[in-house]
Amino acid sequence: MKKSLIALACASAFAGSANAQSLTTYGIVDMGFVSENGGAVGSQEKISSGAQSGTRLGFKGTEDLGNNMKALFVLETGIAADKGGFNQNNGFARQSFVGLQSDAGTLTLGRQYTPFFLALNAVADPFASGLAGNAQNLIPSSGIRMDNAVKYASPTFSGLSAEVAYGFGESLAGADRGGRNVGGSIGYTDGTLNVRLAYHKANDTALGTSNLSDTSTILAANYKFEIAKVFAAYSDNDLQVATINPVTPAKGKSRDFLVGVSVPFGNHTFIASYINKDGRSASNLDATQFGLGYTYALSKRTNLYAAWATIDNKRGGVLYKVGNNSEVGSGDRAVNLGVRHTF
Amino acid sequence: MKKSLIALACASAFAGSANAQSLTTYGIVDMGFVSENGGAVGSQEKISSGAQSGTRLGFKGTEDLGNNMKALFVLETGIAADKGGFNQNNGFARQSFVGLQSDAGTLTLGRQYTPFFLALNAVADPFASGLAGNAQNLIPSSGIRMDNAVKYASPTFSGLSAEVAYGFGESLAGADRGGRNVGGSIGYTDGTLNVRLAYHKANDTALGTSNLSDTSTILAANYKFEIAKVFAAYSDNDLQVATINPVTPAKGKSRDFLVGVSVPFGNHTFIASYINKDGRSASNLDATQFGLGYTYALSKRTNLYAAWATIDNKRGGVLYKVGNNSEVGSGDRAVNLGVRHTF
Amino acid sequence: MKKSLIALACASAFAGSANAQSLTTYGIVDMGFVSENGGAVGSQEKISSGAQSGTRLGFKGTEDLGNNMKALFVLETGIAADKGGFNQNNGFARQSFVGLQSDAGTLTLGRQYTPFFLALNAVADPFASGLAGNAQNLIPSSGIRMDNAVKYASPTFSGLSAEVAYGFGESLAGADRGGRNVGGSIGYTDGTLNVRLAYHKANDTALGTSNLSDTSTILAANYKFEIAKVFAAYSDNDLQVATINPVTPAKGKSRDFLVGVSVPFGNHTFIASYINKDGRSASNLDATQFGLGYTYALSKRTNLYAAWATIDNKRGGVLYKVGNNSEVGSGDRAVNLGVRHTF
Repeated sequence: MKKSLIALACASAFAGSANAQSLTTYGIVDMGFVSENGGAVGSQEKISSGAQSGTRLGFKGTEDLGNNMKALFVLETGIAADKGGFNQNNGFARQSFVGLQSDAGTLTLGRQYTPFFLALNAVADPFASGLAGNAQNLIPSSGIRMDNAVKYASPTFSGLSAEVAYGFGESLAGADRGGRNVGGSIGYTDGTLNVRLAYHKANDTALGTSNLSDTSTILAANYKFEIAKVFAAYSDNDLQVATINPVTPAKGKSRDFLVGVSVPFGNHTFIASYINKDGRSASNLDATQFGLGYTYALSKRTNLYAAWATIDNKRGGVLYKVGNNSEVGSGDRAVNLGVRHTF
Repeated sequence: MKKSLIALACASAFAGSANAQSLTTYGIVDMGFVSENGGAVGSQEKISSGAQSGTRLGFKGTEDLGNNMKALFVLETGIAADKGGFNQNNGFARQSFVGLQSDAGTLTLGRQYTPFFLALNAVADPFASGLAGNAQNLIPSSGIRMDNAVKYASPTFSGLSAEVAYGFGESLAGADRGGRNVGGSIGYTDGTLNVRLAYHKANDTALGTSNLSDTSTILAANYKFEIAKVFAAYSDNDLQVATINPVTPAKGKSRDFLVGVSVPFGNHTFIASYINKDGRSASNLDATQFGLGYTYALSKRTNLYAAWATIDNKRGGVLYKVGNNSEVGSGDRAVNLGVRHTF
Repeated sequence: MKKSLIALACASAFAGSANAQSLTTYGIVDMGFVSENGGAVGSQEKISSGAQSGTRLGFKGTEDLGNNMKALFVLETGIAADKGGFNQNNGFARQSFVGLQSDAGTLTLGRQYTPFFLALNAVADPFASGLAGNAQNLIPSSGIRMDNAVKYASPTFSGLSAEVAYGFGESLAGADRGGRNVGGSIGYTDGTLNVRLAYHKANDTALGTSNLSDTSTILAANYKFEIAKVFAAYSDNDLQVATINPVTPAKGKSRDFLVGVSVPFGNHTFIASYINKDGRSASNLDATQFGLGYTYALSKRTNLYAAWATIDNKRGGVLYKVGNNSEVGSGDRAVNLGVRHTF
């Protein structure tokens, strides 16, 4: 255990050091009971990791470089706490980047979230990409994370900020364009209103021959009233590859619309959202999702959760699914009951 | 390095925080020389990780939630320190769970040890599942760890405690029953006497068609005399699948009996055990194991070890093996010499 | 986050503990832009992890055992921060070992660097095995790391020190000799002059039938003048297997010669090296490499870097490559631009 080192560190640290540097070990362990129904195999009961927030372990830090400049890094791995092993198919595949921050903005290099996903997650979705009613079930972000990415995030001027990201393809087939990711967003917040417009384009890795790509645009907003926060988003999508994004399997064009609300009440929070997907391709894959959630805070860091969601696939079958596609038995209706601890 | 952060943390931490929360980084690095003989390839010399205790790195924590309630979590990975890579075939596959603890007991969700293994490891085996004389070589626990598990551990009343665990199968073949694990134990300890009865049943993942399962029961006890701790255990096993448990490859019924002793003497500890496996199937796979061990404590956290064990496979061949089956050359006799450091 | 624990730890740590023990979490995150040219696929632009120093996360510690004896361990994983995942094909495959240190030297067991690589990295190469001009591009170390290794490092007497390492083969094919690694080095340093002679031999894992091995010897030195540090090395290599070392693919005998220099100037450091490979096999794979580098220290822990290198493959083609062979597009000319942060 680290207690003895900490003693030494405490003793010496006050003596001062050249550049203040921080290292924080952090994470989330989220486990719950999940019941999914309506899929090909009927009802399935399981224990899942990360129903509300992906179980993770991370190491991050900053260093003050003087002149209002900072170095910063994040190394964060997803963990399948129900079975052991890593999520995102590998270790440290949630986020891993290093960068520099100054008055002129933040420049980071590595594997990072797309601006589109951040808008969907942080502005549009009252479920914050978690629980059965997760907006990702229907709104096909053309990419959650970008490999080989350079991202620039502006500082905030009068509530306005923007970010742009470019991910090198590193794919021989299409020379530089195959596998390439490009995205950006612009946002405004005054603490009460939060608005963001984001775009993402992910080229097929075989772009040189296929000439296909996935593009997504989203305009999202939320507004904090006295007793509730309301959410709305509109997203225009054209998925020609679709497998770029493992969450949503269906190719095609669509226009997706979300409305949602979260209502805090003491330690209780009630969440609801409704999503309408208007398919615009010949296959016309219309669908709607309705989700309800409830969290109870046992502390600032630990909460219980309960959620329910249902998807109505207008063309029949279970094309769009509720919940975790990486496990057996996914269907179009799901219940979640669990506990989430952050450290 | 984290020293600067610790300085900041120390400075700010005394200011007090809402809920006391701990995070501990811990682990074991155990490396030793292993010589195994009697197998098909003759004598093999190697350097192995975890001959006494599996090399591991873990992160665990608790948070005081008030009202005598606590949140707790463990994320623990096995490391093959001799070659690099993870044990248990993946990262964080030793243990990963989150839970809540109160006066009414502890409820945890995730990948966890089976009650059967804990009884074998903590009560029955003077070698604590390590070194050449490891009881797992002969006593076929029908499962060391359970995926997708919910476990309830009672509080201790007058030395009595119990735990029950259920692991969801999440296997399509047998709907809900395929791959399912069920286990439990009841124990008593007064500090001198330690008794535990444990049961485990692991269903074949193809249960819907195969209708097979592995079941194990163990009654284990140890007693702390002035100069020695003595161990005894009786285990009844019916392994129809056997591959559920990678350590013991042989299917069949058996009744296994163990006697053992550990003798501490200053920094020295001498350990011995004898196991008799009485095969009860047609193939009648009788075997006995005799193991000797010695550890020398260089400190509370670091020790040297030496061990020797031999298995007598009554029907000839080397069906039951001493030591680490995951490496080449395992035989029916083994010597261990190494060092174990815990942090 | 760990702040609350640290508070508790700080409070209790000053009370003293039996044996002083340290645990340090450390690492490097290094990301840069890499442009490689001259390969079969023409110019390739990418974002790479570890162009200067492999991105890594490590846990290490020591414990004072009294009598001038210490226990020590290292568990260090490489991270592909550009895409997520581990380097060296697995987690904790950079270094993982445990050992004891006393006045008589240090004995360590586990996966460790070869003495040959340490001489190449720490004494011969002004680029310290990083950046485009990395000496490993041409000087074929017959092994960077050794599995299943026992290493003894002597204490330093009047500037003289030595180390020997033996890695068990654990390969059935050649009984004990297949896959075996043997290496050693002897060095002298007075703070100004640093000289080291190192040798390594790595047997083919199929040694019983193939009778092949890779052997390398290097004599390396550097000298710290007032304004510059100069480097020189001579290496004699006979690679019969070559695939033992993934960095340099070409079999054959060669005699390699390096001269280099590094010039610190305030926060700036200029680096240059020239390597001549004199092929001694029938295929006569002569090549030369010239590399230039520049680093700018933003702090003791964070620097920017720029580098350029070119290889002239005398027989045509791009047999020897500049930079990271594990990614697509490697060629015989490369540019690096990036940032490295250590914690």
